[in-house]
Amino acid sequence: MYIIDQESKTPLHVQLYNEIKKKIINKHATGDKLHSIRKVSSMYNLSRNTVESAYSQLVAEGYVESYPKSGYIVTDTTRMNGDINQIPIITQTQKSEDYLYDFFPSRLDRDSFPLKIWKRLFTKVINDTTDFGAFLCGQGELGLRTEIAKYITQFRDVKCQPDQIVITNGFADSMGLLAKIIKNDYNTLAIEDPGYRLALKIFDSFGYKIKKVGLDKNGLRLDLLKKSQAKLVYLTPSHQYPTGVTMPISNRLSLLEWAKEENALLIEDDYHSELKYATRPIPSLQGLNNDDRVVFLGTFSKLLSPSIRISYMVLPNHLLPLYQESFDYKIPRVSLMMQKTLEHFMSEGHWERHIRKTRTLHRKKHNLMKKLLMEKLQDTMKIESEGGGLAIFINPTVEFDWDLLKELAQKNRIKLYFATQRALGEWEAIQMGFGGLKEGEIEDAIELFSKIWKQCIL
Amino acid sequence: MYIIDQESKTPLHVQLYNEIKKKIINKHATGDKLHSIRKVSSMYNLSRNTVESAYSQLVAEGYVESYPKSGYIVTDTTRMNGDINQIPIITQTQKSEDYLYDFFPSRLDRDSFPLKIWKRLFTKVINDTTDFGAFLCGQGELGLRTEIAKYITQFRDVKCQPDQIVITNGFADSMGLLAKIIKNDYNTLAIEDPGYRLALKIFDSFGYKIKKVGLDKNGLRLDLLKKSQAKLVYLTPSHQYPTGVTMPISNRLSLLEWAKEENALLIEDDYHSELKYATRPIPSLQGLNNDDRVVFLGTFSKLLSPSIRISYMVLPNHLLPLYQESFDYKIPRVSLMMQKTLEHFMSEGHWERHIRKTRTLHRKKHNLMKKLLMEKLQDTMKIESEGGGLAIFINPTVEFDWDLLKELAQKNRIKLYFATQRALGEWEAIQMGFGGLKEGEIEDAIELFSKIWKQCIL
Repeated sequence: MYIIDQESKTPLHVQLYNEIKKKIINKHATGDKLHSIRKVSSMYNLSRNTVESAYSQLVAEGYVESYPKSGYIVTDTTRMNGDINQIPIITQTQKSEDYLYDFFPSRLDRDSFPLKIWKRLFTKVINDTTDFGAFLCGQGELGLRTEIAKYITQFRDVKCQPDQIVITNGFADSMGLLAKIIKNDYNTLAIEDPGYRLALKIFDSFGYKIKKVGLDKNGLRLDLLKKSQAKLVYLTPSHQYPTGVTMPISNRLSLLEWAKEENALLIEDDYHSELKYATRPIPSLQGLNNDDRVVFLGTFSKLLSPSIRISYMVLPNHLLPLYQESFDYKIPRVSLMMQKTLEHFMSEGHWERHIRKTRTLHRKKHNLMKKLLMEKLQDTMKIESEGGGLAIFINPTVEFDWDLLKELAQKNRIKLYFATQRALGEWEAIQMGFGGLKEGEIEDAIELFSKIWKQCIL
Repeated sequence: MYIIDQESKTPLHVQLYNEIKKKIINKHATGDKLHSIRKVSSMYNLSRNTVESAYSQLVAEGYVESYPKSGYIVTDTTRMNGDINQIPIITQTQKSEDYLYDFFPSRLDRDSFPLKIWKRLFTKVINDTTDFGAFLCGQGELGLRTEIAKYITQFRDVKCQPDQIVITNGFADSMGLLAKIIKNDYNTLAIEDPGYRLALKIFDSFGYKIKKVGLDKNGLRLDLLKKSQAKLVYLTPSHQYPTGVTMPISNRLSLLEWAKEENALLIEDDYHSELKYATRPIPSLQGLNNDDRVVFLGTFSKLLSPSIRISYMVLPNHLLPLYQESFDYKIPRVSLMMQKTLEHFMSEGHWERHIRKTRTLHRKKHNLMKKLLMEKLQDTMKIESEGGGLAIFINPTVEFDWDLLKELAQKNRIKLYFATQRALGEWEAIQMGFGGLKEGEIEDAIELFSKIWKQCIL
């Protein structure tokens, strides 16, 4: 007996299908014959079409088989279990940690994103784009690649053409893609120590050996790099992570000479270059090189928004064939709408204005935080790194209870970050991020922080 | 002598910096001393600040060093070359191939994307979202994951909670992420033959061994799978790629029993399940399983748009800790705006309506193309796969000149696709995609195609 509710919202053929399926699973034996379509149709006052539709679905799923003369026969049911019910979805709300002040060293504040312009440009993109049914260019839209090429040529002294650029959805995506492309040519990655742990993890996940290479005041030490025997190097020459060191021109040239001699490849991560407060951005390593030895990595996460998920990579010409042969070449990584919106954002000059505005704003915040830290903590603290990025890195100069600092910060709802959380190596510092704080908040935040700090001095 | 143009748009300190840098590179020797700031300031009628700014930049980049009493000394210049000029960016226009009819088997037509709704929802998202400066949840926004969980529970009979779902930017992203997570537990992937070549390539790129497993009319052959010894299987049970076969319930149950016995993991790619024209979608393999043995892969590329770049993966609970320990757990893969817009699209019921609409439209196009192919080609052709997806797969039943077909198609500006282009294995068929053609175009397209076809019959 099937239960069919003529008043239900569920279509009749779906009701009938569910009822028969339940019966097959729970009661029928293999080889049982279903009633004929005609019979079910008259028994339950259903149209032939309705019954046929339910039977076809059962045939399609393999619960019954249809034989020309014998009708619909139940297939092997012995192993079916009765649990075909849906489970309810547990609705949660996203947890957001409730801090008074969050010193996250890698975020911008709420109001920095150019919402109005973005909305206008997105609407334009939606209105102008004729085809959302098609597949995109895997490498990224040519229009956006051209804008990026113009920008990094002018502002980062990079030498490239749009066909060398790949649009990715973030630093990890760029690095992962690169790791795949060059896997047959390199098996060991040299990386700065201290350095960016995520870079290490990505190459490690692709099976590369990792060699850590120490720094001095000019950044990566070439003598140690030579000893490492690695022919592939990841580095942050314009604003070393985490120490903030800038590699000077002579070291850059030596590194490029070494790369030429050794047929090596340098991966230049330009993550924070636009945020230099005391000077203008340092021209890229890539642009000094005439020898196709540098991969240049850039991102819009730091200055525009980490939530738009757009980064890019400039490949040396000799790597283009390898990339074009890989399956990744055909796989787009960022939505057409976001790419086109960013393209217009750049071509209309908003990006340049945005950089200038953001740099000015963050220079102010940087200088304010530096001044306050020096006033309040005086000689109990030394600044390890400043003048760029979205954080000032500090350490105590006195005997200090680090555990108490963490405990008191938690208690006072201050979120602190430490270099060793994201950097490899033993270089420790407290990362006093100012990006996410408004100017007005910095004073109160440092006031509270300094009270805690003083209790931790032993 | 430096050339400074007081009328130029380039700031004075940048002009001075460029002039000095050029001179250092081309004329100066190591150890040369620059004029004092005071002197340059009076010589060129520039403010002290302007000169200081240019000098600081040169110091920051390492072209000169500053010594307390001796002033600014040029560092080693011997290895610098004079090529610091920018290269002009060559602007190209994106090439679009100009075909009369494009039978691409995996695209929707221009008008199928719900532009108006998307624009309205995007604007809402931009207005409502308070924070574009923050990092997103790496796994994907909880709101979107909840909507997806509800949808696949109701329409695909998947059993899952939002915390099992990972939002990715496409099939390749899902597969690559999975390949990384389970790399320590599995080293061999079994894959359907014929099957989806991209799936093979992705796992191959992570160093997995690949075992190809043949099919019969019920899909993947379990006997051959057992022989392969693989404990990890990629399959397309609801609409096998490329043959279109549906795996019946009894085979599904056998496969799940085998997986349980062998502690194996099944990767269920549900890529086209919603597009079934003769029946309703076949319930997922994942939902039949109570044993945490199935990874379920879904996408919005096929039914909504390949250009929005949103797919998802449902992980079995036992893989969650592995995922949460990986660096990928913290890395978002799709922009906040697109995620939120899709979340609203689903929660307001547009997704369900869109599926119904798209399915109805494509059923019509499918049936029309099938009818026309049968009418025009009659018994010179057999249909290999139909009733689902965005293409009908056909082969000639007569002696046939394949090369001539390709040549004539090119000459007549028809773009054809062949199963072996994207599928592994030897199974060949012409993929007659109807997704990108409008109803009105199909008749003309098939008319032209059949003329070509007839010339190729030997």
